[in-house]
Amino acid sequence: MKKPEKGQIWVEHKDTLPEKMPTWQERRILAFGEPMMCVENTFEVGDKAPWHEHVHAQITYVMEGEFDFNVDGEHKLVGKGDSVYMAPHAYHEVICTKPGKVLDMFAPYREDFV
Amino acid sequence: MKKPEKGQIWVEHKDTLPEKMPTWQERRILAFGEPMMCVENTFEVGDKAPWHEHVHAQITYVMEGEFDFNVDGEHKLVGKGDSVYMAPHAYHEVICTKPGKVLDMFAPYREDFV
Repeated sequence: MKKPEKGQIWVEHKDTLPEKMPTWQERRILAFGEPMMCVENTFEVGDKAPWHEHVHAQITYVMEGEFDFNVDGEHKLVGKGDSVYMAPHAYHEVICTKPGKVLDMFAPYREDFV
Repeated sequence: MKKPEKGQIWVEHKDTLPEKMPTWQERRILAFGEPMMCVENTFEVGDKAPWHEHVHAQITYVMEGEFDFNVDGEHKLVGKGDSVYMAPHAYHEVICTKPGKVLDMFAPYREDFV
């Protein structure tokens, strides 16, 4: 299991690298290239992605579970199928309230993740 | 139910607009803004997204089901958790072999979808 190459067309989930994260369960870098990246994150209740910002625009799609999301100080409880758009430099934080998975999309792609 | 606004932070799935597509079941435009868009598509067996290309880079993430994917003439059977990167102008086609859903990400966002 390893991180995909930039521009790799086919990224099979079984080949992706599960990375244990300091404040949540697991991150897997999925397909990426110019100009975007797809990342799968797994959370247990109480896990969080702490308050931060970055130059990359981000969309988070909730695959399962429930999350207390905070974007620029505005809170919302989001669940399966909901999506959240964060403009470049929007501060955001997420706290897991029911175990689940989210898909994070970044543009440009996260060079700091590879 | 309606399409979200460009740059809308919170997009609840229940508020999104299901659009019947000519060759597959349903498309829902989810969160989008500069420079990307997230779209959910639902397929039954035999449904297809016909051979086409566009200026937008695309990543497709398979949420459930199985699909015969063709990118620039190379075929692969992809399933749950797999992701596919398509560079700008890469020709692609997808045929559903087990019912399911995919998440399509585009950068730049699809102005032609809104």
